[in-house]
Amino acid sequence: MAQSADVKVLPDIQASKLKVTNTSRPLPKCEPEELGFGKVISDHMLMIQWSAAEGWNAPEIVPSGPIGLHPFSHVFHYAIECYEGMKAYKDSDGNIRMFRPEKNMERMNVSASRLCLPNFDGDELVKCIKELLRLDRDWIPQKKGYAMYLRPVMFSTTPWLGLTQCSEAMLFVLQSPVGPYFKSGYVPIKLHVDAKYIRAWPGGTGNVKFGGNYAPTVASQIAAAKAGCSQALYVYDKEEWVTEAGTMNMFFLIKSTSGTLQLFTPSLEDGCILPGITRLSVIELAKEWGTEVVEEPLPLKIVIDACEQDRCLEAFGTGTAAVLQPVGALQHNGKDYTLPEDGFAEGSFQMKMLAKLKEIQYGEIEHPWSVCIT
Amino acid sequence: MAQSADVKVLPDIQASKLKVTNTSRPLPKCEPEELGFGKVISDHMLMIQWSAAEGWNAPEIVPSGPIGLHPFSHVFHYAIECYEGMKAYKDSDGNIRMFRPEKNMERMNVSASRLCLPNFDGDELVKCIKELLRLDRDWIPQKKGYAMYLRPVMFSTTPWLGLTQCSEAMLFVLQSPVGPYFKSGYVPIKLHVDAKYIRAWPGGTGNVKFGGNYAPTVASQIAAAKAGCSQALYVYDKEEWVTEAGTMNMFFLIKSTSGTLQLFTPSLEDGCILPGITRLSVIELAKEWGTEVVEEPLPLKIVIDACEQDRCLEAFGTGTAAVLQPVGALQHNGKDYTLPEDGFAEGSFQMKMLAKLKEIQYGEIEHPWSVCIT
Repeated sequence: MAQSADVKVLPDIQASKLKVTNTSRPLPKCEPEELGFGKVISDHMLMIQWSAAEGWNAPEIVPSGPIGLHPFSHVFHYAIECYEGMKAYKDSDGNIRMFRPEKNMERMNVSASRLCLPNFDGDELVKCIKELLRLDRDWIPQKKGYAMYLRPVMFSTTPWLGLTQCSEAMLFVLQSPVGPYFKSGYVPIKLHVDAKYIRAWPGGTGNVKFGGNYAPTVASQIAAAKAGCSQALYVYDKEEWVTEAGTMNMFFLIKSTSGTLQLFTPSLEDGCILPGITRLSVIELAKEWGTEVVEEPLPLKIVIDACEQDRCLEAFGTGTAAVLQPVGALQHNGKDYTLPEDGFAEGSFQMKMLAKLKEIQYGEIEHPWSVCIT
Repeated sequence: MAQSADVKVLPDIQASKLKVTNTSRPLPKCEPEELGFGKVISDHMLMIQWSAAEGWNAPEIVPSGPIGLHPFSHVFHYAIECYEGMKAYKDSDGNIRMFRPEKNMERMNVSASRLCLPNFDGDELVKCIKELLRLDRDWIPQKKGYAMYLRPVMFSTTPWLGLTQCSEAMLFVLQSPVGPYFKSGYVPIKLHVDAKYIRAWPGGTGNVKFGGNYAPTVASQIAAAKAGCSQALYVYDKEEWVTEAGTMNMFFLIKSTSGTLQLFTPSLEDGCILPGITRLSVIELAKEWGTEVVEEPLPLKIVIDACEQDRCLEAFGTGTAAVLQPVGALQHNGKDYTLPEDGFAEGSFQMKMLAKLKEIQYGEIEHPWSVCIT
């Protein structure tokens, strides 16, 4: 009895304890056309501290400003950090809408577990995020294609150099009003199959949104640009299993040799790709539409063969930042494979999918994926 | 002509421009016995800022204190960060000695290149580090086994959410007086072969000192502890190629079936292990002593077979923090393999190696690897 009384249940995130400090120095806004992606920070950010001894502290909304940390903090040395990407949209009535936020919360907890960072109550964090959005609602652009990008990020601030389990952490939710992710708009891009660097491998961290998955890909981006391509397409092992492209999940609409239309996308089972929320939404909508979805380990050869035989009708990437990104060509072993132009024209599968996703995200149709904040 | 005049050569790190701001609030010191590893920070740190537009700014030695960064800084989100581990020793005459510092500078530049962080002149950085050590010389413990641990760390402070090449970075050199790394001293540890998580893979980042290599290993440490072991031994692929253990390189002294004594250590060629400086020093000394060094890709089976046939005489890890760590046992697929106790007793290969390294590091013998700072 005495023992069980000693077991202290540490506090989780509690939205009811949220403290708000309004900014006294509003930050400069810019025209929507000048926004680009992730350059501008809005007036306020959400900050929650955690320690192994005390659990989650009361959440705080504070003016956006520098984060000051002990120089030994684990985030600087051992990359104990994970993040999420979410968007909030303004509908034509001026309501704020989030897209499947509970999925981001689930995934962030999976990422945190892999890195031995603390877990949290996702519903409570979403409540805090809603308050943040309400406070900075004037920062959310209303134009279609524009949104408030939300960046939840958690990292270990454990202040010693030994590589140990996390004893102190911080969680932030940052806000950035954004325009369309790719400068070139919905113009198809060319992907460069990266043979030198491997993004993820079985037993690694490709299935979680871990900061360390991204740093090594800058070199691949540069290699892709040198090859005249926009992004890298990552594969692994001798079979060249397809994983991701840039920071997106990949889809290929292929006609089988017997004439069936199939939407191929790498499966989650090898743990090498991120379980994207746009990816999941595309799979679910495609199935609703009666399209056959082949969610299996995908050797690049299936794609290349289909390209050579004019059976690869469409290819596109998915992600929160880009939503849908048409792919017009692949470069593999120095050889270019060009996809048909009507694959990304009006009336194509991906353009219908993009329109549907936008309808839902901007609240043009009622849909359970769109969470309206009044 | 006009064009070449436009090519602006950006400044590199210049020790002659070093600015020193002495602390006005000295930090509390503790007894050497209470130091542990990396818990205490000394009074001063070296800080150098870099930008793509201006190159390296003048180096500054400033009082150790919090690092304040824009919340969008790439280090928090995409783990664009690399570090080094070095030690400075005080010899019996009170001189400060560094161990092969030029090797750390070379490796840090390789790490930086892989992450598309800026390179720098290592000789100039070493000059700045020497000034830092001189300033905080009272912090360096003189007792054998103790040292000033130096932590150079560089990260991208690029302040936007797009994953791009680095436009702003900071380099710090932090100082921490340390005692012996492993609490248990030179007591052998037991390694747990981790079958679930893979530390590194060809085409990945195992060969550079990238923060992202370390975060995912905390889970392996916990799994090792649960299995009654001290550290994880990382292998990859079906052949179970040996890579590293904990944060150390690995060595196995094995008697061949024909009776030859061979020192096995995984080679660098697959890019899956860090080119350790203690590792290199052990290889070079072993060769000097006439020991046959087998530096090749090492399948775990070679080690397990040798253990089963009582031919694995010794095993040890190497690293800057630990220097040499005796290994007394391995656990693989639930089975324990115990190494002979005289393998880590006085007179063993590894104890002679450790004594030799310490003689050099503490300046008990003159050796070109020990750089004396007067």
